[in-house]
Amino acid sequence: MSRSALFGVACVLVVSVAACSTPPPAANLPEDIAKINALRAAFVDSYGKSDVEALVKLYTADAVMMGNHQPTQVGRDAMVKGLTEQFATMNAKVELTPEETWAMGDHGFDRGTYKVTLTPKAGGAPIIDEGRYLVLLAKGADGNWLVSRDMENSTQPMPMPMPMPMPAKGK
Amino acid sequence: MSRSALFGVACVLVVSVAACSTPPPAANLPEDIAKINALRAAFVDSYGKSDVEALVKLYTADAVMMGNHQPTQVGRDAMVKGLTEQFATMNAKVELTPEETWAMGDHGFDRGTYKVTLTPKAGGAPIIDEGRYLVLLAKGADGNWLVSRDMENSTQPMPMPMPMPMPAKGK
Repeated sequence: MSRSALFGVACVLVVSVAACSTPPPAANLPEDIAKINALRAAFVDSYGKSDVEALVKLYTADAVMMGNHQPTQVGRDAMVKGLTEQFATMNAKVELTPEETWAMGDHGFDRGTYKVTLTPKAGGAPIIDEGRYLVLLAKGADGNWLVSRDMENSTQPMPMPMPMPMPAKGK
Repeated sequence: MSRSALFGVACVLVVSVAACSTPPPAANLPEDIAKINALRAAFVDSYGKSDVEALVKLYTADAVMMGNHQPTQVGRDAMVKGLTEQFATMNAKVELTPEETWAMGDHGFDRGTYKVTLTPKAGGAPIIDEGRYLVLLAKGADGNWLVSRDMENSTQPMPMPMPMPMPAKGK
């Protein structure tokens, strides 16, 4: 092996080791961000159509739904039940405004604000709520992104102050 | 260079390249999880002592606090203001029960349930709320973990149903 060839091997080796010393994979690859944007758009579309079947396909099988002032729902069957009950009495519409989207490897998150409008099917003025969402995302083996953990809360004041419990009489 | 030495270099090279083909760094290293557990414990301790200065040091400088039914607070100055106002009238205590803790590289999250007890300093029975928290975590250059995004919501029903807006009279 000539000196120059040996030098070439040594250089490749150094470059390989240097590459290994930077452990995290590249974050926010354009194809990942594009797929997450499409996922968010699909959620808005399916929610607006009360399409339960399409909605639950946007979540992982073990997804954890943490709806404000609701019990936790784990998995698609629980989601189907909850969404079906909601859509039975309400026409729903949601707007999402992302503020921060991050993806690295198979993990990511999306954070932003929402405005939800629920219009009772029985008539009456719509109920509007605004707040923030924070969802964790997982990339499947097929390269597609799904929601794995879903939490939101409201920026609106409570409808009335939390009642102050009264001490029992005679104590 | 002897044949055996060349073989040795080639082997190291192959191993280096093979290591590089596994992009994500190891997740949930014991030292990271231990530090995140300590961070959670420090939050509980400092909150129970109404120690604003200690609390804000557990958050990144650009942390986003999304308290339920509260406006978003960004950064430590906003946190100091909000916490100082809360602790002025209430003695606070919180219990956190983690359900899922994850760390990879400099990113992580912690998710679980909370029970918060606010006791008015002016007297009266405590106000209790229970719910879930989801926080994003960041590891600093010093190897310590901090909270970067903080959201929680309640599993308790709203104090009263959201009022249905009535149509204006005469319409």
